[in-house]
Amino acid sequence: MSKKKNLTAETTLKIRFSEVDSMGVVWHGSYVKYLEDAREAFGAQHGLSYLFVFDNGFFTPLVSLDILYKAPLVYGDEVTVKAIFIETEAAKIIFEYEVINAKTGKLCVTAKSVQTFLNKEYELELYAPEFYLNWKKEHLK
Amino acid sequence: MSKKKNLTAETTLKIRFSEVDSMGVVWHGSYVKYLEDAREAFGAQHGLSYLFVFDNGFFTPLVSLDILYKAPLVYGDEVTVKAIFIETEAAKIIFEYEVINAKTGKLCVTAKSVQTFLNKEYELELYAPEFYLNWKKEHLK
Amino acid sequence: MSKKKNLTAETTLKIRFSEVDSMGVVWHGSYVKYLEDAREAFGAQHGLSYLFVFDNGFFTPLVSLDILYKAPLVYGDEVTVKAIFIETEAAKIIFEYEVINAKTGKLCVTAKSVQTFLNKEYELELYAPEFYLNWKKEHLK
Amino acid sequence: MSKKKNLTAETTLKIRFSEVDSMGVVWHGSYVKYLEDAREAFGAQHGLSYLFVFDNGFFTPLVSLDILYKAPLVYGDEVTVKAIFIETEAAKIIFEYEVINAKTGKLCVTAKSVQTFLNKEYELELYAPEFYLNWKKEHLK
Repeated sequence: MSKKKNLTAETTLKIRFSEVDSMGVVWHGSYVKYLEDAREAFGAQHGLSYLFVFDNGFFTPLVSLDILYKAPLVYGDEVTVKAIFIETEAAKIIFEYEVINAKTGKLCVTAKSVQTFLNKEYELELYAPEFYLNWKKEHLK
Repeated sequence: MSKKKNLTAETTLKIRFSEVDSMGVVWHGSYVKYLEDAREAFGAQHGLSYLFVFDNGFFTPLVSLDILYKAPLVYGDEVTVKAIFIETEAAKIIFEYEVINAKTGKLCVTAKSVQTFLNKEYELELYAPEFYLNWKKEHLK
Repeated sequence: MSKKKNLTAETTLKIRFSEVDSMGVVWHGSYVKYLEDAREAFGAQHGLSYLFVFDNGFFTPLVSLDILYKAPLVYGDEVTVKAIFIETEAAKIIFEYEVINAKTGKLCVTAKSVQTFLNKEYELELYAPEFYLNWKKEHLK
Repeated sequence: MSKKKNLTAETTLKIRFSEVDSMGVVWHGSYVKYLEDAREAFGAQHGLSYLFVFDNGFFTPLVSLDILYKAPLVYGDEVTVKAIFIETEAAKIIFEYEVINAKTGKLCVTAKSVQTFLNKEYELELYAPEFYLNWKKEHLK
């Protein structure tokens, strides 16, 4: 029995001076941007960008975000941020994330986000929109 | 059997233009600052500030942060952010949060953070430091 | 010969942990938000809010921002930010700013911003819009 | 009469969703980070990084920052940010900046920053430190 490989995307970035707090480590809120970077890299690479979703008539706001901080990062560190698409039957887009110190390979942060679909009247879609089902058929082989 | 009332603190703030995204609602990452505001308000009000913790020899970095987005906020909204101290035997500081639209009373975001204690050599404390136990004795009656 | 007193507004705020950099002082970019806070306080107090401008058919993007850093601020400092309306014949909104340590009275930062008027087709207005002239007549006596 | 060519460095970046405001364009405060990115790219490329300066016993806080906004940028735009070292006899580090839309070549923002030297006792240096003079000798030929 074969297990489908998860669709993923990676982005790399360098920790900015302004993202570090007075303890000398990356401020915990800065990671939200790194996760968004990875999500956008995923969208760009696999054809699921905000603009594509929007052109199909939907917004996909986050409904939850869970972050686990395992090890600190400091100014100048280079990191790889990985977004892992988690398949679900629900009308949701789910990602898991890994933030890895590019030099040491250390896993510093993991996270998970859940997005739902709102139509242009800002109403929640209870069923996955057709464009999303089509996208999944095409990309999750 | 009496149930102890949770120790809480509140802060109020007004949504800034720069905290709203191109969808016209507060960007999901902006809430991390609001939660920190409430945590600081708690520290100031109940004597558990960063500086007090630091003067006792410890840092208390976040090890997890979970956010649930229930309803959007927009530019100009006034919000009340409540931090609720959650008692635990562990060497942790746990808060739950509520972000409430001050005008409508609507609960827009809930969250939970967990902090651990590091000593000045950045080593994790497995047992709650004495100053923290004393603080709890004094404040959680 | 009488000199008209400048129209001003003030806001007070407390320096957040996330606004301080690894040198232990407020990151220079954080001040942009404080200035915006003062500008919004001015708008709210004197009837020149973004929404009022927008409802009259205009955007007012910044075309320049000059900041002078004179003394640092640190975590926990309370500051007063003052926006001073600078009258001009041009189709511009000009503010000067003062960021003052509320405890010591020390002037820490001064700044100046210039905004122009764009109509809803994003075209630059060469002449001050009528609603703005009316606002000035009413408020700059 | 020969004119020395200015020392420069460039960095490229993509506009993030979180950097755009509710008008759909990059929030004016976001540019401060882009300028810092270019300044850091300069430091890394030409051996004048924060850490090098710090190891030589100095901080170099900004004392002024002037920004001119000429054209907007939107979400997804790719930009080139150029830092241009401006030689001065004074005990200062001066940069000019250009933020250019990478696709269209349009100059969107220009800026200028001035930094001074503080020693580890946070005292202002009235004369350019020797390490800085040596760096200039080596790099500004």
